[in-house]
Amino acid sequence: MDDLTDDQDAFGRLLGDYLHGEYGIELVERDDGFIGTAGSPSQYFAPFDAWPSHERAAMDWARGRVLDIGCGAGRHALHLQEQGFDVTGIDVSPGAVAVCRERGLRDARVLGITRIERDSRPWDTMLLLGANFGLMGSADGARTLPARLTAVGGENARIIAESRDPATISDPVHLAYREANAQADRLPGQLRLRIRYKRYVTPWFEYLFVAKPELEHLLEGTDWHVTQYLDAETAADGYIALIEKGG
Amino acid sequence: MDDLTDDQDAFGRLLGDYLHGEYGIELVERDDGFIGTAGSPSQYFAPFDAWPSHERAAMDWARGRVLDIGCGAGRHALHLQEQGFDVTGIDVSPGAVAVCRERGLRDARVLGITRIERDSRPWDTMLLLGANFGLMGSADGARTLPARLTAVGGENARIIAESRDPATISDPVHLAYREANAQADRLPGQLRLRIRYKRYVTPWFEYLFVAKPELEHLLEGTDWHVTQYLDAETAADGYIALIEKGG
Repeated sequence: MDDLTDDQDAFGRLLGDYLHGEYGIELVERDDGFIGTAGSPSQYFAPFDAWPSHERAAMDWARGRVLDIGCGAGRHALHLQEQGFDVTGIDVSPGAVAVCRERGLRDARVLGITRIERDSRPWDTMLLLGANFGLMGSADGARTLPARLTAVGGENARIIAESRDPATISDPVHLAYREANAQADRLPGQLRLRIRYKRYVTPWFEYLFVAKPELEHLLEGTDWHVTQYLDAETAADGYIALIEKGG
Repeated sequence: MDDLTDDQDAFGRLLGDYLHGEYGIELVERDDGFIGTAGSPSQYFAPFDAWPSHERAAMDWARGRVLDIGCGAGRHALHLQEQGFDVTGIDVSPGAVAVCRERGLRDARVLGITRIERDSRPWDTMLLLGANFGLMGSADGARTLPARLTAVGGENARIIAESRDPATISDPVHLAYREANAQADRLPGQLRLRIRYKRYVTPWFEYLFVAKPELEHLLEGTDWHVTQYLDAETAADGYIALIEKGG
């Protein structure tokens, strides 16, 4: 997705409002007409001690220079910065980047995953947390974006990526969507979404949930492979994969 | 609005899900692209003791045979039925009517305000609570629907109607909508809305909030006039009007 205009920055506005005392609800609309709440914005501001245990444990995988892709309100980036890491946070949402800066993240940039460029020095750790492996968007994205991460990462770069098995969701309306995906030759957990808040609405974008075997399959033929997993306490809450170079 | 089809019955499905243990959030979308949450469905099931004091007091105005227009989950209708009143609840939502029946309302019918017909016996009290004066929809509705209520009401019929002053809402996005209404020769508190829940979405409908002077002005030339008001504790929470026959 390109950088968002002010009218499109539903997520950034929600985060900014929350930071300044106005509590709102993030809405996620799917292209089949389904709309639901994404939960409280407080989750994006949760301090380290309030994180689920597998997320806390995943922080031990960080090393060197860190790029937080889709950094949101910056909770992972800020935690690692506090731990002494050199961290850059990027997000397509100008409002989210403003929130990160206001919260003290020293290097926050408005930039989407598809436009990451080689920096002065390569990144050693690239975060795709909060289900942000989903930013790969589709099977095509999951085949092409890893090459971009190879290009901007150092020799021993690693990716720390979070996703969840779409089959853990059993509501009939979601089952029907997965069925339609199968008919249309899309991945089961591929979603066409937009985020809404007040009058703000993002462009439609593709988001992707994958089970572990799918993740591994998608990485075949790239420079990357999964070396470790950390599971959430319940399968519906997903898992975090450590993805390293080498096949 | 005509009776809703299953796919359109967002409100009824929300109420039914809530009654059966599934907690959802009602979303209200406005035709300028604004979307927001209407609060917890629990409000539609609140027991008498949990109601705001002006609503509790308004129950003392009921007499004779009661018609609850837009009865929702039936909290007013069920309360009055328990008090010994002969109560009919009507709603355009088949799901809401099913919820009312399941909760014990003896006479619940799928019917909208624009299609109320003369019954075997006239109604003595007609409820438009929960801001349901808004079902008048527009200045036109507020001029023509009272005649329908005259036709189905008894000689000494009364309307108990709730609304609120649209000027009590100061969020800029709402101010802009009121400005656009003024430009379009609509009432300030007229809203074009639809309700969404999961994949359910109602047709667009007009809803109306009025200040007391507007309410009185709209009733000029009808058989009805306001004889008493009960105010909520804060102006933003509206008022309830007792509307009786005679000019």
